[in-house]
Amino acid sequence: MAEEPELLINICAKLSFLAEKNQFIVVPGGGMFADVIRDYDKRFNLSSKVSHRMGIIGMDQFGLLLAQITPNSIATLSLNDAKQISKTEAVPIFLPSRLMLRNKPLENSWDVTSDSIAAYISIRLKAPKLVLIKDVDGVFTKEPEYEDAVFIEQLSPEELLKFDQATCVDMFLAKLLSESPVDCYVVNGKYPDRIEAIFAGQKATYTLISK
Amino acid sequence: MAEEPELLINICAKLSFLAEKNQFIVVPGGGMFADVIRDYDKRFNLSSKVSHRMGIIGMDQFGLLLAQITPNSIATLSLNDAKQISKTEAVPIFLPSRLMLRNKPLENSWDVTSDSIAAYISIRLKAPKLVLIKDVDGVFTKEPEYEDAVFIEQLSPEELLKFDQATCVDMFLAKLLSESPVDCYVVNGKYPDRIEAIFAGQKATYTLISK
Repeated sequence: MAEEPELLINICAKLSFLAEKNQFIVVPGGGMFADVIRDYDKRFNLSSKVSHRMGIIGMDQFGLLLAQITPNSIATLSLNDAKQISKTEAVPIFLPSRLMLRNKPLENSWDVTSDSIAAYISIRLKAPKLVLIKDVDGVFTKEPEYEDAVFIEQLSPEELLKFDQATCVDMFLAKLLSESPVDCYVVNGKYPDRIEAIFAGQKATYTLISK
Repeated sequence: MAEEPELLINICAKLSFLAEKNQFIVVPGGGMFADVIRDYDKRFNLSSKVSHRMGIIGMDQFGLLLAQITPNSIATLSLNDAKQISKTEAVPIFLPSRLMLRNKPLENSWDVTSDSIAAYISIRLKAPKLVLIKDVDGVFTKEPEYEDAVFIEQLSPEELLKFDQATCVDMFLAKLLSESPVDCYVVNGKYPDRIEAIFAGQKATYTLISK
């Protein structure tokens, strides 16, 4: 999403609209900062500890960008503040570095990306729903560029755990979801109305990962 | 430097060697993270406050990379710790976000980059020398890709202040240097021996900005 300004601005406008009547916290992805880290990793063969730390700081960076383009939003390093802001009409954008680098609740691994970090936060907050905004319609049986890739409407974390193909979500997510009751929606950010449908409990094109 | 692994590794090895007998603190540049921020700025027209903050966090990011590839180095958010480490044979790599974002000693502007931040830190520490490692030989009368650009061996901060051409150093540096006694060396990182010459007080190809 990070490369297409209009798409990202549309998503942010939708989040701002949804915040008027819904409680949620935005956990940023890594944007183009994640690409730079992957690139440095290729050149310098970074340790997983360093790349993990850089990745989390990259989420703060991208969060600052989101805060600038999301109307009525507030960026914060405090999860508690984010929770309080979520009860207002403002959009809380949670910068995860302080929480994730101080306590290190998740392992240092490339398998742990912003998907798993968002899942960890939703579990910690006992949120009923986790929405992962992607640039594809959801989870497919294989990477969606293959012609025989089949879109999956619903699956369980246990089924996702058994996947031997890469999907649009990180490898650690299924493990986290298998240990918690949160419903995880994987949705295409190109269609912000689908995000709204998830909030409203309506049907739309997305993948639901649920027990 | 950030795009050429071997060059960067050579510089870092030289710093590690120099730390055995010299006291200094490494202040990272922004590496490829700075390019991403400039790119986002073009797409989303970031406020100078946000781009400045992202830039400083990018220095932390790049500092983590430097710490990984510099033998016997320690990355720290504390300037005091960096000072203590500089007295040992280890290389202190100072991550500037905490210092620069808490107290905001420099203005929020694209004119303030890691050059000015390094100068601010050297002034604060009363360091006699500031060495800016670049991918060109030093300061030229105009951008060095012009054929009639002339290399400058030495100039004063006041002369640099009057420049109406962009140079390889940021626009705020001259102002900071004009208010302090620090000698600033601008040197090409492709030739790490030139860095060693500066430490030894020997002649080499570099630009000296001094009163």
